[in-house]
Amino acid sequence: MPTSPEELRVLVEDSLEALELWPQLHGQAESVRYSITVGGKRVRPVICLATAEAAGVPPEAALPAGCALELVHTFSLVHDDLPALDDDKERRGQPSTWKRYGEAVGILAGDALLAEAFRLATSYDTPRVARELAHATLGMIGGQYLDITGTAPDGVTLHSLKTGCLFSAAVGLGLWAAGIPEDEQAAWRAFGDELGLLFQIVDDILDGDGYVLTHGSDSARRLADEAAERARARLDQVAADTTVLREIVDGLAVRTA
Amino acid sequence: MPTSPEELRVLVEDSLEALELWPQLHGQAESVRYSITVGGKRVRPVICLATAEAAGVPPEAALPAGCALELVHTFSLVHDDLPALDDDKERRGQPSTWKRYGEAVGILAGDALLAEAFRLATSYDTPRVARELAHATLGMIGGQYLDITGTAPDGVTLHSLKTGCLFSAAVGLGLWAAGIPEDEQAAWRAFGDELGLLFQIVDDILDGDGYVLTHGSDSARRLADEAAERARARLDQVAADTTVLREIVDGLAVRTA
Repeated sequence: MPTSPEELRVLVEDSLEALELWPQLHGQAESVRYSITVGGKRVRPVICLATAEAAGVPPEAALPAGCALELVHTFSLVHDDLPALDDDKERRGQPSTWKRYGEAVGILAGDALLAEAFRLATSYDTPRVARELAHATLGMIGGQYLDITGTAPDGVTLHSLKTGCLFSAAVGLGLWAAGIPEDEQAAWRAFGDELGLLFQIVDDILDGDGYVLTHGSDSARRLADEAAERARARLDQVAADTTVLREIVDGLAVRTA
Repeated sequence: MPTSPEELRVLVEDSLEALELWPQLHGQAESVRYSITVGGKRVRPVICLATAEAAGVPPEAALPAGCALELVHTFSLVHDDLPALDDDKERRGQPSTWKRYGEAVGILAGDALLAEAFRLATSYDTPRVARELAHATLGMIGGQYLDITGTAPDGVTLHSLKTGCLFSAAVGLGLWAAGIPEDEQAAWRAFGDELGLLFQIVDDILDGDGYVLTHGSDSARRLADEAAERARARLDQVAADTTVLREIVDGLAVRTA
């Protein structure tokens, strides 16, 4: 009986809660902890753990990788919120990290989150977990650059970088954590590549922006359903029990928050 | 005939110059490249390469590790220069990265440098190179926090974090790149731990601050000479040809820039 998405989320939440930050961070640790615990749906690490379990290892084996992904995601939010970027004073109903701790400590909090992520990702015997995380992080930063400078060639490119990279990596890191060799990863990765777009379109539907503005509300809904359908079709090509990943796709397609 | 410090520096400089940044960075790559080429003495990667060669491999084997160290060092300078931190408009006679490209791109440039560093560090078969780099980066960030908040218990703690972590890692990464097992590293590491302090005191003598203000000019000079002497004594305990590392110590002790 595979672990349910909600049980995986609790595993991730508990692991983040219990995370021992590097002692040499000294007082900087407080703002890092604050940034992590302000919350979120933990959807990337849940996908990572579900992938690892479907690929044949206990989900706990993917916890360092999943938490590393969540820290990279959190790092991106902490820096995006800074006055020089989006100037967001709130994040999920709480003061954003820079608003709570000042701009200097906010910048360092993002830096520390990124370094902690690589500390976790390098706790595996293979460097592949951390290597793929570095690639995904670079793509995400490139997307953020295209966004703030208004230089993206199109929305698909922008979102595949800003959102897609970390979702693809959620599947990829789960595979490395499960010890799946590179030449057996293709079908899984084709699935991972569909997830970011699905997440992004539904996000835009919930926020009434992005795809809703460019395509209209009905078309955005149809695009989301088509992305979910493609993701399910990709899962059909994976030779494993992927019921939990399918459940996650269904949940992403109809989520209301 | 081991490679001289100046030859090692040229190796590092050429490698940084030829570094292929991750394509998905798109336009963000320009500010990253700018930050790297504004220069510096490349002392950390030179130590890394010299350690690797003394430990028995061609210095080129340590180039990814050495360049990763230099990128982490550069990341720290780019973020330290930001208005919210030191507000430095110049770096080595050129506009600082944020001054040249704006604050938002300056923040992202530091982020991208850190992620590129981990991309390089994870190019080895072992995760130990990147793992040690993550530890050193976290210590450096902790030191920066103590500095800007004025909460350091003392100057030795502050400098051992802000400067010492990356110098110790220069030796450590060279050892991992050379494939030296952990239980044979102790004598080398005792040497690495002395380097940061030596570098810091001479830095303060050149800038007329730090140790010069707290200890006076003559005492600072004596402390630097003692640190160099301890570093040489540590090298005597290493069972290898360490003439180039000794030359580096001598150079650090008497440097005038």
